[in-house]
Amino acid sequence: MPDRLELHNDRLFPADTSCRSVARRLYEDIKGLPIISPHGHTDPAWFARNDCFPDPYTLLVAPDHYLLRMLYSQGIGMAEIGIKDICGASTSNPRAAWRIFAKHQHLFRGTPSGLWLDHVYKEVFGQSVRLSESTADEYYDSIAEQLTKDEFRPRQIFDRFNIEFLSTTESAIDTLQYHKVLRDSDWNGNVATTYRPDSVVDPEHHQFKQSLQRFGELTGEDVYSWDGYLRAHRMRRADFIALGATATDHGHPTAQTANLSTDDCRKLFERVTTGRATPNEAELFRGQMLTEMARMSVDDGLVMQIHPGACRNHNAWLFDNYGSDKGADIPLRTEYTTALKPLLDEFGNNTDLTVIVFTLDETTYARELAPLAGHYPCLLLGPPWWFHDSPEGLLRFREQTTETAGFYNTAGFNDDTRALFSIPARHDTSRRVDCAYLARLVCEHRLSETDAHTIANDLTTTLPKRAYRIGDKS
Amino acid sequence: MPDRLELHNDRLFPADTSCRSVARRLYEDIKGLPIISPHGHTDPAWFARNDCFPDPYTLLVAPDHYLLRMLYSQGIGMAEIGIKDICGASTSNPRAAWRIFAKHQHLFRGTPSGLWLDHVYKEVFGQSVRLSESTADEYYDSIAEQLTKDEFRPRQIFDRFNIEFLSTTESAIDTLQYHKVLRDSDWNGNVATTYRPDSVVDPEHHQFKQSLQRFGELTGEDVYSWDGYLRAHRMRRADFIALGATATDHGHPTAQTANLSTDDCRKLFERVTTGRATPNEAELFRGQMLTEMARMSVDDGLVMQIHPGACRNHNAWLFDNYGSDKGADIPLRTEYTTALKPLLDEFGNNTDLTVIVFTLDETTYARELAPLAGHYPCLLLGPPWWFHDSPEGLLRFREQTTETAGFYNTAGFNDDTRALFSIPARHDTSRRVDCAYLARLVCEHRLSETDAHTIANDLTTTLPKRAYRIGDKS
Amino acid sequence: MPDRLELHNDRLFPADTSCRSVARRLYEDIKGLPIISPHGHTDPAWFARNDCFPDPYTLLVAPDHYLLRMLYSQGIGMAEIGIKDICGASTSNPRAAWRIFAKHQHLFRGTPSGLWLDHVYKEVFGQSVRLSESTADEYYDSIAEQLTKDEFRPRQIFDRFNIEFLSTTESAIDTLQYHKVLRDSDWNGNVATTYRPDSVVDPEHHQFKQSLQRFGELTGEDVYSWDGYLRAHRMRRADFIALGATATDHGHPTAQTANLSTDDCRKLFERVTTGRATPNEAELFRGQMLTEMARMSVDDGLVMQIHPGACRNHNAWLFDNYGSDKGADIPLRTEYTTALKPLLDEFGNNTDLTVIVFTLDETTYARELAPLAGHYPCLLLGPPWWFHDSPEGLLRFREQTTETAGFYNTAGFNDDTRALFSIPARHDTSRRVDCAYLARLVCEHRLSETDAHTIANDLTTTLPKRAYRIGDKS
Repeated sequence: MPDRLELHNDRLFPADTSCRSVARRLYEDIKGLPIISPHGHTDPAWFARNDCFPDPYTLLVAPDHYLLRMLYSQGIGMAEIGIKDICGASTSNPRAAWRIFAKHQHLFRGTPSGLWLDHVYKEVFGQSVRLSESTADEYYDSIAEQLTKDEFRPRQIFDRFNIEFLSTTESAIDTLQYHKVLRDSDWNGNVATTYRPDSVVDPEHHQFKQSLQRFGELTGEDVYSWDGYLRAHRMRRADFIALGATATDHGHPTAQTANLSTDDCRKLFERVTTGRATPNEAELFRGQMLTEMARMSVDDGLVMQIHPGACRNHNAWLFDNYGSDKGADIPLRTEYTTALKPLLDEFGNNTDLTVIVFTLDETTYARELAPLAGHYPCLLLGPPWWFHDSPEGLLRFREQTTETAGFYNTAGFNDDTRALFSIPARHDTSRRVDCAYLARLVCEHRLSETDAHTIANDLTTTLPKRAYRIGDKS
Repeated sequence: MPDRLELHNDRLFPADTSCRSVARRLYEDIKGLPIISPHGHTDPAWFARNDCFPDPYTLLVAPDHYLLRMLYSQGIGMAEIGIKDICGASTSNPRAAWRIFAKHQHLFRGTPSGLWLDHVYKEVFGQSVRLSESTADEYYDSIAEQLTKDEFRPRQIFDRFNIEFLSTTESAIDTLQYHKVLRDSDWNGNVATTYRPDSVVDPEHHQFKQSLQRFGELTGEDVYSWDGYLRAHRMRRADFIALGATATDHGHPTAQTANLSTDDCRKLFERVTTGRATPNEAELFRGQMLTEMARMSVDDGLVMQIHPGACRNHNAWLFDNYGSDKGADIPLRTEYTTALKPLLDEFGNNTDLTVIVFTLDETTYARELAPLAGHYPCLLLGPPWWFHDSPEGLLRFREQTTETAGFYNTAGFNDDTRALFSIPARHDTSRRVDCAYLARLVCEHRLSETDAHTIANDLTTTLPKRAYRIGDKS
Repeated sequence: MPDRLELHNDRLFPADTSCRSVARRLYEDIKGLPIISPHGHTDPAWFARNDCFPDPYTLLVAPDHYLLRMLYSQGIGMAEIGIKDICGASTSNPRAAWRIFAKHQHLFRGTPSGLWLDHVYKEVFGQSVRLSESTADEYYDSIAEQLTKDEFRPRQIFDRFNIEFLSTTESAIDTLQYHKVLRDSDWNGNVATTYRPDSVVDPEHHQFKQSLQRFGELTGEDVYSWDGYLRAHRMRRADFIALGATATDHGHPTAQTANLSTDDCRKLFERVTTGRATPNEAELFRGQMLTEMARMSVDDGLVMQIHPGACRNHNAWLFDNYGSDKGADIPLRTEYTTALKPLLDEFGNNTDLTVIVFTLDETTYARELAPLAGHYPCLLLGPPWWFHDSPEGLLRFREQTTETAGFYNTAGFNDDTRALFSIPARHDTSRRVDCAYLARLVCEHRLSETDAHTIANDLTTTLPKRAYRIGDKS
């Protein structure tokens, strides 16, 4: 007999009864608040087309690199999990891959993936028993059937999830066609884009050359001259702003910034565009571009997000055969105090600028990021990212940043996901852990319960809206 | 109606009732013990002159970089907070700046500054409601009035706070005039100085050149020759010892030490004094001087404190316009295992030497500092420093060092503050967190309650006195 | 009156009553399971000869670097602790040294050594009062008397401890004579060896030259040619496998790996064998040899263990006078993401290979090791090592690795000890802390209690056997 699937009302709250009572009261106050999702990777085409999602596997497993990495780590091949290689070959089918996934649920014990998926199964698809090898088909059929219904289409799900604001992330060379469709549609959902220029900013990006060419075509600028290249960025940022963007996003290997003279910029850019940049020059160019982006943000008001510290595509063989985003990105130690100084020396005291900094290196929370955000007017701390938006990770973030940066130099939660159906689960996890943390402060008499209620609301609504200037635009 | 200001008797104790009971019993035992404050930055002139403090803002806000940084991080300008620029211009007045501060109390929720200040308001100034925009003037008037009374003069406050020993920190070129006044006064307060030679040891110090010249004038030595320079240090150390000093203090960017031959020292010193030292040579010289200081400590018995890892004056514009100590110092990743080896190879096994090592990089607690202090006879672990002498920081210190270094390679608490009125609050925080930690060990049956009582007393009294050789001098 | 010695049934369980109840139930289920000890440093001669152990000091204190380091850190000289210098001189005797040790028990408050030893005193030697200065002789006499009895001989202790599998660690140039005796004996104890080739792999090893020569003698290969050298490794690995080995072990200063062409290997090897290798070349050679060892493991099935990050013999004077393993090894910051890439690019996707990675740098748990082990099929996370197999360290390991790597990319517990009598204490500590961690997940509704029971059993038995392929061999 399969185990019952239950989501306990007190999940993620501290076991101690007095803390738990406080946590419950705090959570009760915020659990129903609308979702603000200012950074994520859902596909705007979903909302533009509003087609039904195909099947449980394609919806829930295939695009989720957390699931793929865990299965792969246990010797289950990509083909077995149903992933096509870069030639498109696949030896599996969705149901077979779903069965493999279902059979290995024990791997997800104690992981956030396990928590999020149980939330999706129960709250979104109404499942009453746990997923396992024996319930795999029952699950598949039930979810597949529900996905054919109108109320499971993207826009209906968005509305059902009470999402007030959702931002997607598009490349600087994206045509934004789906966002244009959304702008012109009669649907009220607030879905904005975000300007992510990595492929035209990073000389080591595997599509840099083609991207730069396309960047020129889209803007009509001479993007091989430094001035034309900068103008092209300004034009595209305006395009993105016109389609709701309030922010840019920058995924760099490090947090290095630079502030060269215009002459040195021109020389460096020539090396970059002629393919002669050394790795150090590529790094310098990325760093210079962060400062250029900050300069443009001072003018056009876009909030900057810096996401440094991932070694992308660490597994060479996997990348060659299956491409990116299969769970083979590995964090690197990351330095901020020295790296951000050139940008901060130029714009750090500018109260018109907002730069939200993220990290995959938790050692920087208390040592570098909280002190930096607790001093510079332009800086805010982004929420725990990627490997760290888990119960323990969310708690460590608060424990290691609050005492130096306070709550009001943080920016609310990001679900940062392409897994649309898990968005409420992720925000719920964050809300619960914040309440657990606040409850401990209350019970240790470090905070009044009244203040804790205010903070819980601010973390959920006020701070993300302020950080991402959402009130400014919508 | 303003909120009542309350300091709960159980604050900072664990919520769990059994742990809390143990913590209460341990704390009851030590809460009234005299304060040993062997490292701090109060002004000896206060005690020498015993003038009244001017006003609440000038006493409590202006010199507190924790408060300035937090306000500044939220876009409140230095002038608005009442800070004069380096030309002395100020557009504010103390009461106006106090109101700004009062209005932004929410920024300090969950921070140690919030806890410390509430303690000061309640315990020292008898306030019964919380500080807020609406109570700002009431606070200001009440505290200002109390400050005019004799019992709020520095010596009376020192006595009221039950301070048994207080160390200030003076530059190697300080005349120690106020400490001489204190030595010759009939007041019994034990206020000692500490020898801090950074400005004559660090070739990159912005006042190195002038300081070195003054160093020569004060000592009558030829401080531009290596031998004369070392003799000058020995003379000044003797001056400091004569005024109660039991320790030296060294604030360096890194923990690097060096142990060059005398010939190499001479050559390096010539480069340094002629202004030709490269950054690497400056670093090498600072490192050599730590070893020289250790050598002198073996002779004269001064305890060495090493405080590495701050990037001072990170914000260039702020430094240029408002100077140092405005909350713009940012920690750097710090390495000890390799960096300390030259000094330890020379003096590490000397049981006459005491070197107390601090860090702003908590990752070194378990990885480097506890293993080093848990082996070398000369080394002790300094308490959590600066950003880390907070409830969470104090707890992490014990959790990450005790298992390898034990309690008896630690050195008690430092308040490390120029905020005289907050000294009891800071020591109380440390005592409570130590009791909370010990209570958990007791409840998890890792320590007997009898041993925990002994340890609580040792951490409060025995260990700081032993570490700083206070019994030797007083 | 001496304090009673008690081991509380609930030790190391959370204080919270609901968590404690769950922890008790989980622990009840696994406390009696046989001990799997796949990595350690006991002496195979003990089991081969089965002689009585000499005396309490020589058994319990002299070989335990945790104890030596702590005593030494407090200014107690090596001679005073009874340690002979490298010339063999000793001014102490076992009983006198035992008394010194007994007198300084307060140093071990809150340390794992304290917990482990109390377990040994109580459970193995039936002591009823705590060790102290006043009970030192009583302890000494009682334990000394018991050690003369047959039931305290090594094989009897092994059986009494319910050890199912114990691995020792032998150098690549060991004759394995004691393991041969064990293989040919009628005793049933499963004691295997482990292949540790550091002294013939590390050009900077202080016995590299002699070891390499001996390596040649033992194998009859020309170990000064690259091909002969590799063949010698393969031969010796086969020798070790014949005596039960299921694993190799590699203690390197860093985790650096390399993957050079055969030509470059030959050239590098020539520099190494002719003593001309620079430090960088020595590092490169060690890195290359990790990849070579992985290649051989793919063929012969030995599990690879990588133990990087110790600065061995940090205290130069102590090493010169007293040799290695006296508690003077200090951890170094360690990097894995970049360092392991060459090996992983070659063998990372090979499901026949198992590489177990350890660290002394806890910052890598969440940042690098869990993401790596949570992706690569060949990688498993080794348990907390050395300074970190303590209650807090064991808990931090689970809290920082589980969410990304899950439980099933970990490898069970290692006692890693030469202290035979403490093996049950160490495994018991690990089991209790795992139960405490699991109990918290259960109470926070992040895991069902049923799953927690399964996991507790897996961590104790299934995972170490699978990781070390113990079922394959025994």
